[in-house]
Amino acid sequence: MRMYDLILKKRRGISLTADEIEFFVKKYDQGEIPDYQVSALLMAIFFRGLDAEETAALTLAIADSGDRADLSPISGIKVDKHSTGGVGDKTTLVLIPLVAAAGVPVAKMSGRGLGHTGGTIDKLESIPGMKVNLEPHEFIEQVNRVKAAVVAQTGKLAPADKKLYALRDVTATVDSIPLIASSVMSKKIAAGADAIVLDVKTGSGAFMRKVEDAYKLAKTMVSIGKKVNLHTVALVTNMDEPLGMSVGNALEVLEAIHTLQGNGPHDLEQLCLALGSQMLLAAKKVKTEEDGQKLLKTLLKNGKALEKFREIILAQGGNAEVIDNTALLPRSSVQEKITVTADGYVQGINAEMIGNAAMMLGAGRETKDSEIDLAAGLVLEKKVGDKVASGDILAILHTNKSEIIEEAGKMVKDSFIIGEKKPGPIPMIYGIIGPNDV
Amino acid sequence: MRMYDLILKKRRGISLTADEIEFFVKKYDQGEIPDYQVSALLMAIFFRGLDAEETAALTLAIADSGDRADLSPISGIKVDKHSTGGVGDKTTLVLIPLVAAAGVPVAKMSGRGLGHTGGTIDKLESIPGMKVNLEPHEFIEQVNRVKAAVVAQTGKLAPADKKLYALRDVTATVDSIPLIASSVMSKKIAAGADAIVLDVKTGSGAFMRKVEDAYKLAKTMVSIGKKVNLHTVALVTNMDEPLGMSVGNALEVLEAIHTLQGNGPHDLEQLCLALGSQMLLAAKKVKTEEDGQKLLKTLLKNGKALEKFREIILAQGGNAEVIDNTALLPRSSVQEKITVTADGYVQGINAEMIGNAAMMLGAGRETKDSEIDLAAGLVLEKKVGDKVASGDILAILHTNKSEIIEEAGKMVKDSFIIGEKKPGPIPMIYGIIGPNDV
Repeated sequence: MRMYDLILKKRRGISLTADEIEFFVKKYDQGEIPDYQVSALLMAIFFRGLDAEETAALTLAIADSGDRADLSPISGIKVDKHSTGGVGDKTTLVLIPLVAAAGVPVAKMSGRGLGHTGGTIDKLESIPGMKVNLEPHEFIEQVNRVKAAVVAQTGKLAPADKKLYALRDVTATVDSIPLIASSVMSKKIAAGADAIVLDVKTGSGAFMRKVEDAYKLAKTMVSIGKKVNLHTVALVTNMDEPLGMSVGNALEVLEAIHTLQGNGPHDLEQLCLALGSQMLLAAKKVKTEEDGQKLLKTLLKNGKALEKFREIILAQGGNAEVIDNTALLPRSSVQEKITVTADGYVQGINAEMIGNAAMMLGAGRETKDSEIDLAAGLVLEKKVGDKVASGDILAILHTNKSEIIEEAGKMVKDSFIIGEKKPGPIPMIYGIIGPNDV
Repeated sequence: MRMYDLILKKRRGISLTADEIEFFVKKYDQGEIPDYQVSALLMAIFFRGLDAEETAALTLAIADSGDRADLSPISGIKVDKHSTGGVGDKTTLVLIPLVAAAGVPVAKMSGRGLGHTGGTIDKLESIPGMKVNLEPHEFIEQVNRVKAAVVAQTGKLAPADKKLYALRDVTATVDSIPLIASSVMSKKIAAGADAIVLDVKTGSGAFMRKVEDAYKLAKTMVSIGKKVNLHTVALVTNMDEPLGMSVGNALEVLEAIHTLQGNGPHDLEQLCLALGSQMLLAAKKVKTEEDGQKLLKTLLKNGKALEKFREIILAQGGNAEVIDNTALLPRSSVQEKITVTADGYVQGINAEMIGNAAMMLGAGRETKDSEIDLAAGLVLEKKVGDKVASGDILAILHTNKSEIIEEAGKMVKDSFIIGEKKPGPIPMIYGIIGPNDV
């Protein structure tokens, strides 16, 4: 088998066999195929696509480039959750304790990530003492005992994905639906869960700007799950404005605590209930989505979800007092109010611009070696549909870099679209794709 | 300027500016842009194409990656000729003395090449003593004195082409019309002629299998010439069966001598007259193609063309006795007749299979370090349209590798399609594209 022939075949629009795909992933991972041939193949895939069989074969080849996590010592059906990423997305922080409180084991491996804010792992590190590098046996023991644990994902899971992603990142071949889908699903497969609930975001703050592209990605991932016998459900959800009010690491932990107390922003709670009930369904904890929503609402109301979060923090060495005394979370030296100069309704908030402002304030990593400022970020005071009058506060910036306030403030202000008419409601959940829909 | 942005732009189908193209060629040639980004761009170009401006900019950027040859010390209009390559194509061997005999200076830089046989330079080395590495001043002096000289092309002309071609060759991005066109034209521009006559071949033995692709390539190259003010004319010609009867290095020199004596195969002579008359037109030696043909036919008839070949050989240190005593050319140890086992007409000869057989017999290079057997090759005894009866000789194989005869013989036999009906005539010249046609 020659890599040249694989490139030519794909370039001509002919499907590659599973053997051919396995050959190229394996040999590339082992350094036996050069970058320049793989980048040519990736570009040919960008133009020609991959069919369902090819996408599944690629996913499995990447998943099997390293060890698969063995979660079999954990009793029960393990359900993983993944989001394609958005601005202010702290659903994982809420869902881990919430779903665990319902009795479903949550063995969560999570990333740090390059983005407007850190990943779930960075956010959790806002909690003083919180340990995110557990040994495999500690991780499994904790899930069996507490019903939940969160650890930083290691490079050993699907290492070929890392290598392929790095190449895609510098060759303009990231935004190919089958390549995105196989990248996500390979890591989920390697992480060893029994079922996956995916949150595929669409809108100004999401990778998939168009709803139809988000549907395509959702269907591609659910179809991969079906082909490899991994129960997969995908929700296509709105990311046209930031999720909730807070963007930033400690700020999002704070908002997650409020949400677990039953005082979260409506959109965030709604999304957590939708994703959480799908997780309960996948774990066979409930029979209908309605039952799932009902159970989760009760757990928010009766304090069990919050109590579970406390247990998890304690189990991982963190200071659980943050729950009652949120002043223990990192706090920035400067808080700056951004006010509006017009009257009307908020008709839109450009989520990407809000994310970029948060990044500028210090909340995210520009390169993988950048330091994150856990206290930095911003809190929106207004959301789409809200009425505003000149002088009202739109958002509060949190930063330790006072020199950046003016620029970031202008960006936040510019991200708000104010108009005369009250905008119609936007759905939070566009649709749900299950194995029977692909 | 970032290479990433150029890849993304082209991938999206947006034209690159001349500055962007120059940037990537220059930086790649200097080793500042990695292969993997260039191969991704080349694949994006394969799918998106290049418009006329981009193709001209790419051509100039490649041409200017090295020095341009300065032919200004040669008096008269210098016309270069280039063929896209075919099986048995020895037109250059005939055209150099023929056109020079008409008084037009021919300053020919030629390649060796990887193919079914060697390039013009290899073929000429069949002539004992023939020197093909002249110093620039010797080359120019010889053209001024004898009206013609042939030298091996150096790597200093358009070095970026070499690097780009090597990358295309391993990433399945060779067969892109704008990339082929810019590769050919960049070398021709760097070689310093005042006008170019191109022979764009099409058919089973050519790179362009389809006539319409050959027209596209021809138009693209003529259009580049127009944009850079280099008078360019392209002939689209037939390569559905081998050109002439001989395929192999010394065997083709022999056939060229016969043609210069006025005894060449009809198709070869016809093509040489067509290309040669365009060269005379471009050099303003004649006013019409008809006048050109007439003049060239006279030079074949009156021995002046053959005499010019003798002068050139002598000037370059070769043994000109080969012209009268062709036994002085290298000769293989084995000559094997291939006979036909059916009655009927030759309806087709697969030129590529004939070429592969010649290569197998030793006439070509498989890798750039392979040794060529100058004596090896084959001579056809029948061409398309000829009547054959069982037992007739189809071809004679020439080789020093007797172990390969059976396999090569089968390949030659299989390349002949014998049928009952006499096939209709195929045109040698499909069309001529000049600057006014693009």
